[in-house]
Amino acid sequence: MYNTNFINMKIAVAKGDGIGPEIMDATLKIFSAAKVPLEYEFVDMGKWVFDKGFSNGMTPEARLTIEGLGILFKGPMETPKGKGVKSVNVTARKTWNTYANKRVFQTLHGVDTVFSKAGIPIDITIVRENIEDTYGGIEHMPTHDVALSRRFITRPGSLQVIKYAFEMAKKKGTKRITCGHKANIMKLTDGLFLECFYEVAKQYPELKSDDVIVDDLCMKLVTRPDAFDVIVLTNLQGDIVSDLCAGLVGGLGFAPSANIGDHISIFEAVHGTAPDIAGKNIANPTALLLSGIAMLRHLGLMEQAAIIENSLLYSLEQGIHTGDFGGKETRSKNTTEFADAIINNFGKNPEHGARPVLSNMPVTATMFKLDHNPMLVSKEMDEEKIVGVDMFIESAEQPEVIAKKCQRHAGVKFNLINISNRGTQVWPTGSVYTNLVNQYNVRFESIDGEPLNQQDVIGLYVSLSGNFKICSSELLNLFGEKKAYSLAQGQ
Amino acid sequence: MYNTNFINMKIAVAKGDGIGPEIMDATLKIFSAAKVPLEYEFVDMGKWVFDKGFSNGMTPEARLTIEGLGILFKGPMETPKGKGVKSVNVTARKTWNTYANKRVFQTLHGVDTVFSKAGIPIDITIVRENIEDTYGGIEHMPTHDVALSRRFITRPGSLQVIKYAFEMAKKKGTKRITCGHKANIMKLTDGLFLECFYEVAKQYPELKSDDVIVDDLCMKLVTRPDAFDVIVLTNLQGDIVSDLCAGLVGGLGFAPSANIGDHISIFEAVHGTAPDIAGKNIANPTALLLSGIAMLRHLGLMEQAAIIENSLLYSLEQGIHTGDFGGKETRSKNTTEFADAIINNFGKNPEHGARPVLSNMPVTATMFKLDHNPMLVSKEMDEEKIVGVDMFIESAEQPEVIAKKCQRHAGVKFNLINISNRGTQVWPTGSVYTNLVNQYNVRFESIDGEPLNQQDVIGLYVSLSGNFKICSSELLNLFGEKKAYSLAQGQ
Repeated sequence: MYNTNFINMKIAVAKGDGIGPEIMDATLKIFSAAKVPLEYEFVDMGKWVFDKGFSNGMTPEARLTIEGLGILFKGPMETPKGKGVKSVNVTARKTWNTYANKRVFQTLHGVDTVFSKAGIPIDITIVRENIEDTYGGIEHMPTHDVALSRRFITRPGSLQVIKYAFEMAKKKGTKRITCGHKANIMKLTDGLFLECFYEVAKQYPELKSDDVIVDDLCMKLVTRPDAFDVIVLTNLQGDIVSDLCAGLVGGLGFAPSANIGDHISIFEAVHGTAPDIAGKNIANPTALLLSGIAMLRHLGLMEQAAIIENSLLYSLEQGIHTGDFGGKETRSKNTTEFADAIINNFGKNPEHGARPVLSNMPVTATMFKLDHNPMLVSKEMDEEKIVGVDMFIESAEQPEVIAKKCQRHAGVKFNLINISNRGTQVWPTGSVYTNLVNQYNVRFESIDGEPLNQQDVIGLYVSLSGNFKICSSELLNLFGEKKAYSLAQGQ
Repeated sequence: MYNTNFINMKIAVAKGDGIGPEIMDATLKIFSAAKVPLEYEFVDMGKWVFDKGFSNGMTPEARLTIEGLGILFKGPMETPKGKGVKSVNVTARKTWNTYANKRVFQTLHGVDTVFSKAGIPIDITIVRENIEDTYGGIEHMPTHDVALSRRFITRPGSLQVIKYAFEMAKKKGTKRITCGHKANIMKLTDGLFLECFYEVAKQYPELKSDDVIVDDLCMKLVTRPDAFDVIVLTNLQGDIVSDLCAGLVGGLGFAPSANIGDHISIFEAVHGTAPDIAGKNIANPTALLLSGIAMLRHLGLMEQAAIIENSLLYSLEQGIHTGDFGGKETRSKNTTEFADAIINNFGKNPEHGARPVLSNMPVTATMFKLDHNPMLVSKEMDEEKIVGVDMFIESAEQPEVIAKKCQRHAGVKFNLINISNRGTQVWPTGSVYTNLVNQYNVRFESIDGEPLNQQDVIGLYVSLSGNFKICSSELLNLFGEKKAYSLAQGQ
C-alpha cells in the first residue's frame, strides 16, 4: 500500500505546553500507523524552557537542531506573562524568517457552523506576512503619556511573501488572489505592500488579482465568504482575518497553519495550550493533524498525506468527534480514541472533498548551511536626497509658543514648515478644538529644497536641544522626485 | 403630538458626494415631517471642495460654521485618490477631536442575514478610538526598501474614549463591557490602552468588564456574536471590528455612526458615495437616517427620535425596502418612496425592539469658545531618566561588521547593547537564518545605568554619523524603575 522505499527524513518536533504533548502523541501515532517515513528529533521549547531561564523560550541546542533539520513540527506553546519576554512562537517565526504564514480554511462536513447551516461553502487560503508590521515589537514611550510602536513594511519582505502567495495560488489552480490592506490610511506602508502585490501580479496574468480594504474585506467575509479564494495580507491584518476565517469553519481547532521560509519551515497548531484540560486526554487534535498533513505535502509525502486526510474527513463525516464539537447524540471520543478511529478508517474516502492519492515525490532536503545573514536589498531606483527632518519633542506648551522658539533654531539652512500633534496640524493653521498631548512633531525642511547632509541635521539637533527634549527624529528623504514622507492631517 | 415649544437649534449639514445629497434630502424630509425642531446651515465639504484647491476638503467658512454650531450631520464624502491628500472624514474627526466613534449594530427584522436566519440576535455597540493609532498618518521611508508608520497610543487619549464608553454603557444598562486589543504583541501601546481600560473599570464596579485579544474577538464575533454587548477598541482594530459587525447585521447600509467629542460631534453614514447609482434616487438612506436618529437623541430630541425609529423598524418589518435588500417578491421602493413610507407609518410600533416615546429633554448648547488648544497631560508619576538611545541606521553590511564600527563610537558614556533588524536581534547573538533589510536598529545604553543627558546623545549621534546615515533615533527612557522601551525579539 505504501511506498516504503522512501528514505526516512528527520524533522524536529516540539510537543509544546498544556495539551501539546497529548495531541502531538495522537498525531504521531496516526503518522506511524500510516507508515510516514519520518524520524523525529524532540527539542526543548516552551513555557518550561522560559522557566529555566532561556529568555527566548528555547534552548541553544533546540535552535541548532532545528536549523540543522530545516523542519519544525510543533504543538501549542505558552509564553509567561508579565516577565517582559516575547512569544516563543513569534520569536521562532521571525528568527528563522518563515516569511509566509499559510492557513487554509475549509468547510468540514461534521463540523457545524452558521455558514455550513446556511449552505455557504468555504474554501479560503490566507497568506499572512509573518515577520514585519508591529510584530517587530519596536516600542518606546517618549513621554509618560505617549507610547509608540514602529510599524514597518519593507519592499523585499513584502515581495517574499507575495511571490510565495502567487506561486502557491498558481499551483493550487486558484482563480482569484486578493490583497487585503489599509493603504487608504497607511499610504506609505500598506501602499508599498499593495504596490509590490501588483508588481508581482504582472508575472501571473492567468490569475485574477484584485485588492480590498481590510475593513471592507471583513464585512464581506461574514456575508459572502464564498467569494474569496486566496487572500494575502500584512501581519496584524492577516492575523485578525485568519482568526475570523477560522471562526467561519468552526474555530482554531479546525485550521492548520504552516510558516514557510526559504531555509526553515514550521508547522503548528495555532490554538492555545488549554491548561484547564491538559493531561485529561480529551483535547481535539484536528488542527495539529491538519498542520501535520500540510507538512507531509511540503515534504513530498503526498501519498500518506492523502490517506490520512481522506480518513480524517471521512471520520468527521461519520460524526466522529471529540467533546468540543459534533452531535450531542453520539458519545464523544477522547484524544486517543479519535486518533484510533482515524487509523481504523485508513483507505476510506469522504463524500465531500476526497483527495487523490498521489505518489510521493522524493524531496531532497533543501538545507544548505549559511555562513552569513542573507541581506535582502532592492536595486536603488532613484537618487536619494535629505530635504528635512521631523523632530519629535516633549512639550506641554501651546503651538504658537513652540513655533516661535523653533523658528529661532531654524538658522540659515532650515524653514519651520509645520507643527503637528498626534498627526494633526496645529501650526501654522489648525483648530483650537484639536486636543493636544505632550509630544509634538516639528517639521523642518531645507530652504528652497536644497539637499542637506547629516551635519546640517546635527546642527539643528544641537540648537533645538537647548530648548526642548528631543525624544526622536526622522529624516525627510526625497527619492528622485517622490517625497518619502507623509503630510500632517490638515497640511 | 409633538412638543413644538422646543427652541429651534441650528446644526451644520454637509450633504456629501455621490448619493449623499439624495439620502440627506430623504432624511431631512423625514425630520421635517416629524417636526424636528432643528435649523440647518449647509456647509461646503467633500470631493468638489478638494477639487477647488482646499487640501483638507473643506472651506475655511465650513470649518468656522461647524466650530460655531458644534454639531455636523454629514453624508458620505469622497477623497480624491493619488493626490497625496488625506481623507476629509478622518481630517474632520481628528481636527475636532471627536475621540469616540460609536457604532450600534442591531438585528433589523426585514434585513436578512446568515445570523438572522440562524436565529442569533445581535445587539453590539462598538466604541472605537477615533484619533490615534496609525491614523496619525505619520509615515516615512528611511531607506528605499523600508517604510515606517508611527503607531501611537496616548494615556489621555485612551482615557477619553474609555471613559466615554463606560459612561455610555452605564446609561444604556449594559451588562458587559469588553476591551479588544493586541497587548500580547504591542505590549507598550496596546498595553497602555488596556491599563487605562482597567483603571476606568474600577469606577464602574456594577459593569462586568473584561478583555479579549482582537483576533480571538473576531473569531468569537462570527461564531457567538450574541455574547457581546459593548466593545471598546483602538482605532484600526476598531475600524476592522466595526465593519465585521456591520456585516453581521446586513452591511454598512444599516449601521449608524456617531463621532463624539467634548465640543463638536459628527453624525454620519460611513458607507461609500456609490457614484455608480448617484442621482438615480434609488439609494438606501437607512444608515444616514439611523445616524440622524442618534443625533436627535444626542440633542435631547427623544420624542422625535423614537417616533422616527419606531416607524423605520415597523416599515422594515412590513417588508418595505430599497433595491439593495429585502424580499424579491415585493417591489423595491426608490429613495423618496422609502422616506414617504416611513413618514406614513409615523405612530406605528414595530413588533421587535419598539422604543418608548420619551419627552424631549431641553439641551443647552454645550458650545463654549476655546481660545487655546486643550492640553491633555497626566500627572507625572515617576521620575524620568534617559538611559540610552536606539539609532536606526541605513546599512547593507553584516551585523558583526556594524557592531565593530559601533563599538568604536560608543565612547566613555555608552555600551553597545544589541543590534536588531526588523525587530529581531542579530547581535551579539542571533541566527544566520534571520534575513536582513538595509535598516538596523543599534541600541546603546549608558554604562552602569548612569543617567544621560541630551548632550551625551548628541555626542554619540555626531560620532556615529561619521560611519552611518542615521535615519532616525529614539531615546530610551526609564520611568521610575520601569523601562519605557521594548526588548528586541530574541534579546
